[in-house]
Amino acid sequence: MTPDFAASEFERRTERAQRAMKAANIDALFVMTEPEVRYFTGFRTLFWQSPTRPWFVVVPASGKPIAAIPEIGAALMRETWIDDIRTWSSPHADDDGVSLLIDTLKGYDRIGVPMGRESVLRMPLLDFDRVRDGLHASAFVDATDLMQRLRMVKSEAEIQTVADICAIASASFARAGDLFRVGQTVADAFRAFKIDLLQGGADDVPYLVGGCGQGGYADVISPPSDTPIRAGDILMLDTGSMLRGYSCDFDRNWAFGDASDAAKRTYNTLYRATDAAFAIARPGATAADLFKAMADVIGQDESDIGRYGHGLGMQLTEPPSNIHFDQTVLEPGMIMTLEPSMEIEAGKMMVHEENIVIRDGAPEYLSTRVAPELPIL
Amino acid sequence: MTPDFAASEFERRTERAQRAMKAANIDALFVMTEPEVRYFTGFRTLFWQSPTRPWFVVVPASGKPIAAIPEIGAALMRETWIDDIRTWSSPHADDDGVSLLIDTLKGYDRIGVPMGRESVLRMPLLDFDRVRDGLHASAFVDATDLMQRLRMVKSEAEIQTVADICAIASASFARAGDLFRVGQTVADAFRAFKIDLLQGGADDVPYLVGGCGQGGYADVISPPSDTPIRAGDILMLDTGSMLRGYSCDFDRNWAFGDASDAAKRTYNTLYRATDAAFAIARPGATAADLFKAMADVIGQDESDIGRYGHGLGMQLTEPPSNIHFDQTVLEPGMIMTLEPSMEIEAGKMMVHEENIVIRDGAPEYLSTRVAPELPIL
Repeated sequence: MTPDFAASEFERRTERAQRAMKAANIDALFVMTEPEVRYFTGFRTLFWQSPTRPWFVVVPASGKPIAAIPEIGAALMRETWIDDIRTWSSPHADDDGVSLLIDTLKGYDRIGVPMGRESVLRMPLLDFDRVRDGLHASAFVDATDLMQRLRMVKSEAEIQTVADICAIASASFARAGDLFRVGQTVADAFRAFKIDLLQGGADDVPYLVGGCGQGGYADVISPPSDTPIRAGDILMLDTGSMLRGYSCDFDRNWAFGDASDAAKRTYNTLYRATDAAFAIARPGATAADLFKAMADVIGQDESDIGRYGHGLGMQLTEPPSNIHFDQTVLEPGMIMTLEPSMEIEAGKMMVHEENIVIRDGAPEYLSTRVAPELPIL
Repeated sequence: MTPDFAASEFERRTERAQRAMKAANIDALFVMTEPEVRYFTGFRTLFWQSPTRPWFVVVPASGKPIAAIPEIGAALMRETWIDDIRTWSSPHADDDGVSLLIDTLKGYDRIGVPMGRESVLRMPLLDFDRVRDGLHASAFVDATDLMQRLRMVKSEAEIQTVADICAIASASFARAGDLFRVGQTVADAFRAFKIDLLQGGADDVPYLVGGCGQGGYADVISPPSDTPIRAGDILMLDTGSMLRGYSCDFDRNWAFGDASDAAKRTYNTLYRATDAAFAIARPGATAADLFKAMADVIGQDESDIGRYGHGLGMQLTEPPSNIHFDQTVLEPGMIMTLEPSMEIEAGKMMVHEENIVIRDGAPEYLSTRVAPELPIL
């Protein structure tokens, strides 16, 4: 029935949501983004890349979630564990799911919708306003925290899926010596790596970024250039590859020919920063504690350097953030990236990233831990 | 400087926007989604896949657009034609760009934001409300139509990019006989096709959906199954592959071994429906006219069948929709998909799709037109 997980997985998610809703005095949880809809239903399709149609799921106080979706998704939604599937013909001239959504939400006093940090409103704002106008007796309250806390703690089935895609990416990274070489353009290196990931079993490689430059890289979010790799370059690749709807997110660095002592020292410092965070990554520690453990090794205070990793799961990045102000307490089942970064010298940076799962005791690496010294190709 | 286009491309876009803003009495256009930010700046990165940080661009009544973005994007934004780049450290404990955005928008009386059909609010709703509260002297007005009309009409540089990715995908589709075979799982066929697209020069294959089944397929948005292809199956693959930030979106059908007369007739009907739409796809016709031309060949009225194609460009699907109610008038430079579909028999459907560009006269195919008869592998 449900291709990625047994129905019990979704029952468990729904029960956890309903307990949290009761505690927050929320009568219905209304979600509309791809990961949130998939979280409760198992509905997985790349069709979300078309922005044309909105999709809605309502989790009532008890019973299964209700899907209110475009007719084009009905056949696939019927393959999931969801029974109550309401559809409309979308796109529609003047009512693209608005009245169907109002009908679905009618009668609930307090409707929870994620409206806070990291949330997006994946429907037209004017239509959302029409829904609120049509439900003037209901209060719309922020459910960001509720939704994020649910998704942060993964089931064993979710952890296994992330472990599987981490293993695929680790194996591709281990083939770096065969895939990358001086003279190859950075774009071709990206291409060779993507193909290797697909051949290794990844369903998709939606995220592959990196940097390459003499003695370090200046930027880590740019698309690859057509510049050939040169001796003395440091190459970093960071992938969010997907398997059955779950993502890995980690990177690797390589030097070509040789590297400066400064680069080697930086690499080892970041390695030790990761060790320091790993050592304290246990239930009860906070995301801010992970940040501080890494910052202490690096010798960095908290000013303006962003974060050193984040949650991971259905999305490339999920809450919490390893940053000085995030007091989220770690719990068993949380999957985190440890992502310390620092400058080798002005304008040349280095980033490390590993993926771990928090356990009742010591954490486990999901990515294959890198060697402590900068690899030279 | 700008990797994908010359600065003149962005100047032209901005000038067109500012003329449209003047006509609509809009003093500043405020956008926040990936394609809209990229449209005005050239800022292209996969980093948008992380939902953590919001990104803002403001187009004033005159002069270059202003970027108000997380510090992590500053280096890449400096590579574009944008001069005024304002940044904040994101994620932030309590002000994730809100006060910077208020400062950037202060003094404009009427601020246009896309809030209608196909739009999303890619920032937390609570933060958007804070921005509106902080600018209580300003009116926020819907700029959906303005933004969509700008992006619908492509420049020659944009058309060339879509033509290039269409050529890459056409070449991969032409290798179907080498790539797909009876006994191969549908998932492996998808994988082989993705790898071929990457080897052929596609930057990415973010969208690949399809269907496969005896005598036709029941669904066209599902992920691929591990079921082996059998003699008598019809396989359809539909790809949105990307090149320099632009997408193709078309599909192909193949039968394995043999196909029923009904399937062959259906294929040819859809071929002729595409011909009929292509014949009238000239400036002055509407998207609804394209729909009607195809529906007439298929013998379908307008009830509840969705659309027969759509706009195409930076996104897999863009306005307008080829549907009975969309009265958008075609103009030279619009890139459209023609995507008629019909049932072969109950529960077994077939979809055709081609990509065309509207010209001052007859349109042009960007995808290599399929043969008029169902190909048998």
